Amino acid sequence: MEAPDVWVPDNEDATAPSMRDEGAENIVDVVSEHGSDFPGQIHPRVVWHRNDPNTRYRGFQHMLQITDPEKRAVEFIDGFVIPEVGDIDDWKKADEFITIVEEEHGLEEGSLAMSVIVESAQAELALADLRDEISKPTNNLGRLFLLVDGEVDYTKDMRAITPTGELPSWPELRHNTSRGASANGLIAVDGPYDDIRDVEGYHGRMTDNQAKGMLGIWSLTPGQVVEANKAPLPPKTGSWLLDTNDHAAELKEEDTRYVYEGSALELEETSDGRYRLRVDGDERELNADELREELLDLIEYVPSMNDIVDSMEKFQAAKEAGKGAIAMEQSVTLLIDRTEINITKDRMWDEATYQAAQTPITLFQDVYENRLDQHEELKKMYGRNVVERAMNVG
Amino acid sequence: MEAPDVWVPDNEDATAPSMRDEGAENIVDVVSEHGSDFPGQIHPRVVWHRNDPNTRYRGFQHMLQITDPEKRAVEFIDGFVIPEVGDIDDWKKADEFITIVEEEHGLEEGSLAMSVIVESAQAELALADLRDEISKPTNNLGRLFLLVDGEVDYTKDMRAITPTGELPSWPELRHNTSRGASANGLIAVDGPYDDIRDVEGYHGRMTDNQAKGMLGIWSLTPGQVVEANKAPLPPKTGSWLLDTNDHAAELKEEDTRYVYEGSALELEETSDGRYRLRVDGDERELNADELREELLDLIEYVPSMNDIVDSMEKFQAAKEAGKGAIAMEQSVTLLIDRTEINITKDRMWDEATYQAAQTPITLFQDVYENRLDQHEELKKMYGRNVVERAMNVG
Amino acid sequence: MEAPDVWVPDNEDATAPSMRDEGAENIVDVVSEHGSDFPGQIHPRVVWHRNDPNTRYRGFQHMLQITDPEKRAVEFIDGFVIPEVGDIDDWKKADEFITIVEEEHGLEEGSLAMSVIVESAQAELALADLRDEISKPTNNLGRLFLLVDGEVDYTKDMRAITPTGELPSWPELRHNTSRGASANGLIAVDGPYDDIRDVEGYHGRMTDNQAKGMLGIWSLTPGQVVEANKAPLPPKTGSWLLDTNDHAAELKEEDTRYVYEGSALELEETSDGRYRLRVDGDERELNADELREELLDLIEYVPSMNDIVDSMEKFQAAKEAGKGAIAMEQSVTLLIDRTEINITKDRMWDEATYQAAQTPITLFQDVYENRLDQHEELKKMYGRNVVERAMNVG
Repeated sequence: MEAPDVWVPDNEDATAPSMRDEGAENIVDVVSEHGSDFPGQIHPRVVWHRNDPNTRYRGFQHMLQITDPEKRAVEFIDGFVIPEVGDIDDWKKADEFITIVEEEHGLEEGSLAMSVIVESAQAELALADLRDEISKPTNNLGRLFLLVDGEVDYTKDMRAITPTGELPSWPELRHNTSRGASANGLIAVDGPYDDIRDVEGYHGRMTDNQAKGMLGIWSLTPGQVVEANKAPLPPKTGSWLLDTNDHAAELKEEDTRYVYEGSALELEETSDGRYRLRVDGDERELNADELREELLDLIEYVPSMNDIVDSMEKFQAAKEAGKGAIAMEQSVTLLIDRTEINITKDRMWDEATYQAAQTPITLFQDVYENRLDQHEELKKMYGRNVVERAMNVG
Repeated sequence: MEAPDVWVPDNEDATAPSMRDEGAENIVDVVSEHGSDFPGQIHPRVVWHRNDPNTRYRGFQHMLQITDPEKRAVEFIDGFVIPEVGDIDDWKKADEFITIVEEEHGLEEGSLAMSVIVESAQAELALADLRDEISKPTNNLGRLFLLVDGEVDYTKDMRAITPTGELPSWPELRHNTSRGASANGLIAVDGPYDDIRDVEGYHGRMTDNQAKGMLGIWSLTPGQVVEANKAPLPPKTGSWLLDTNDHAAELKEEDTRYVYEGSALELEETSDGRYRLRVDGDERELNADELREELLDLIEYVPSMNDIVDSMEKFQAAKEAGKGAIAMEQSVTLLIDRTEINITKDRMWDEATYQAAQTPITLFQDVYENRLDQHEELKKMYGRNVVERAMNVG
Repeated sequence: MEAPDVWVPDNEDATAPSMRDEGAENIVDVVSEHGSDFPGQIHPRVVWHRNDPNTRYRGFQHMLQITDPEKRAVEFIDGFVIPEVGDIDDWKKADEFITIVEEEHGLEEGSLAMSVIVESAQAELALADLRDEISKPTNNLGRLFLLVDGEVDYTKDMRAITPTGELPSWPELRHNTSRGASANGLIAVDGPYDDIRDVEGYHGRMTDNQAKGMLGIWSLTPGQVVEANKAPLPPKTGSWLLDTNDHAAELKEEDTRYVYEGSALELEETSDGRYRLRVDGDERELNADELREELLDLIEYVPSMNDIVDSMEKFQAAKEAGKGAIAMEQSVTLLIDRTEINITKDRMWDEATYQAAQTPITLFQDVYENRLDQHEELKKMYGRNVVERAMNVG
């Protein structure tokens, strides 16, 4: 969990402008020495700018230098990350330089991947052009791999201003990047999360990204790498949430009951077998059935890895038995202000539900197959049995 | 109100894959028998997939089968719904098959409508290409009718993950679908709302959709059909809302006053003729004018059908009298914590306000003209006089 | 501050349809008489409609009329605002008419600017096509200047409905307009804010717009002009905010301490040197370090003009000294419920942070250079020294 899926040795912003020729040589040294030990892929970032031919030419020279077969780094290098791209014709310029690099060094055409950093309005527009351009015979854009959002430079390019200087959250950019990745079989990755100490914020950003189909995120520190590796994984144990207007509170398991300890919701059984429920200041009198219906709307279940695998296996069995849809049922006993109440949640699963539920499992399988170094830890986390079933389901 | 505007007999997800040839025959049986009684349009859904030529060919065969003139269903069929389309060239493949179906069965070219389900990133991108393609001479895309969002499959295609497995709300997709519909004279329709028992949630979704210009929604149950028919209609009686940070509370009419019963806002008249107002914990001392200004920002009026027709008639009369803009005034007496206060809200109406206000009326007129079966119920709901004026205004 | 950067004498919605020929003559009279006194640019709005050739032809005639050299208004006119444009080919029609106007009146080709009002789905789609079209040899779209959103007509064109008749906030439209402006070197401007008395709402809208890179806004009244001129300027003095779930409260400076007076957060020092913190109802026991970390997440600083210039100068000096990144530190003493606590916030600045922080300064410099009439007031507001440093930094 300490190693990222993709390691990006940086010769752009992290290196002083005057030191970048040495920076490229540094990358060669580090990768040729340690590349064989690294379990993920290696994609150095070189300099590039849509508005500056000199920067583009330097990026080209650095790529030539880094992949020189005599320097023995190229055998560990999977591709390059190109920052500051502009519209789709600018992407093609970088692609063409990589094609020439491949030709010069006797590498197979298209064998080096290319990832771009979307950090300008022009590049965001290019995301919508990509599908029409990616398979044209005069380019090798099929080498594209990651679409990375770079929010700091994007904010500058969009001339956006916030009172505190914080970055806007740019939901539309992230949507468009994710959509471009999905339409072209690529992977959408979010940019750096600046506030390094704010682990909760980093998690919140990943949750938000995942709901947009943006499955990766830049990591700046070893701590962020571990968080980023773990965040997309379903939890080991499921949990119940109670979601009121303001936020979702996790219910605490006690014996077999789930206890609500917040103050946004108050419940009292009145003498005549009816209930008084107060949610965010609104008070209502309800009978048991009405109360159940009300609470049903407020509680949510976060399934564990085991739960997801279970449900998928159940649906697969049902499908083999000729059923197109089955109901998945889940019961829970809630304890709110000393009042106990039983609730059953059911959800209809059909082929589409099944396939949508499959995304975290497919991601798990993809990472597991490519990251032998994580096998032990994952088995420790989930148990060998769950991991094996997760690898076989779907 | 029990019949939808469009009935979609389904031969895709609701039918087991092995039963779809029989499913097509079923549609023929049902439509030929009951088609003449159904007051809306009929558009069966056939199978299709951007990535699978075999599925596309089956969809083509089912369309041929369903529209066979000898089977006597085609006279009631207005078009087909094509799911799982990809980019615009994939839409053209479906369009071409329908053209061939029309030719084979002696139907007028372009007479069968085509609706698509937007449930992939590719199809979302196609929404922006449509205007450039829709009137090209080599296709009949002019047959397009509904653009339907399919969020379950879209979530899968975008590889999105949420902790609870709930669907993301996809505001950008819905915006882009609505925009595509508006730019091409089509109708944007939202996909199924899974939680069948959650009537409030279904309503909330429709309100959100309508604010995006997405005027239709899929209905899965008879109950949802009634809700979906009624939701876009302006209410019979207007209502006043008081909107604090957290949510909008409807004020209760008592005699001629509107009473606030929530707890987010507290008001007290102090001895010296001034007021103490507390909103969400912030307390302020105000004089009567300042109080009125403050409350003006917090209250909102939801106009009834009668109110909207009234305002439109007033503006039309003003326009005929040579005025370009008039002020619409509305007074209300509020009762908050036993303190009574009079407030007058006015809004400037010009041609643009008038035309924007017209959307719900135009929708009403459009449905009314096409759905003779709803006339009685609408007259019962609003009164004959309001309905007649609503049909004549604008 | 009383004059806008751009004055748009209106011959569209503000003029009755039957009076528009006289309206054009009025513009000639007013501009020829007062044009030399106006410190900003002058761009009259003429009639146009994507669906109506007659309206387009009238707009053409009005432009010919207004720019007639003999009428002596043209020397003060910088361009025209074209409302109700459709897709990009419709923009070209307006551009072509302006080219003919220039030719007829002996003006340099491309010398009259063209601004468009984006108030249809088609025009929103055109924003994404613009970069491919703007430099084609057969048009003069290089004359484009402002991209203005017109939300009232857009709402009508999108057929959107809200219960109260209020306009939707259309975040996607504003994003796409800002993106189109950034990708093509133009300026994105938001449309009119109808509720003229609601100064707070107008401010909130500008803050939201600026976070999207939309730096201008329509002003309908002299009061709105002043607000719109001042809102994008950094404040004279910085301020500390405490941001809880619900909203950000400004802390009150007392001596050298910043006092929190809200009720969303409660703090108490318990006898054993530990703290009890209650945020939005969630209570936690913390030691001093944990408390500091928690508060660090809740407080924000809004920098003054002086602060921004300071930070930029510091970073420039560091860069000259060969450093690529430096930490900017800020300390504050908070007083919450009589408990005093010291907090230090630091942020890493690199080249990208520096450039993103530069946007408000660049905007300030741009306005300052073009608006000699604002120099005195700006110096009075910030002090001569800060203004001079702001003009020299970056």
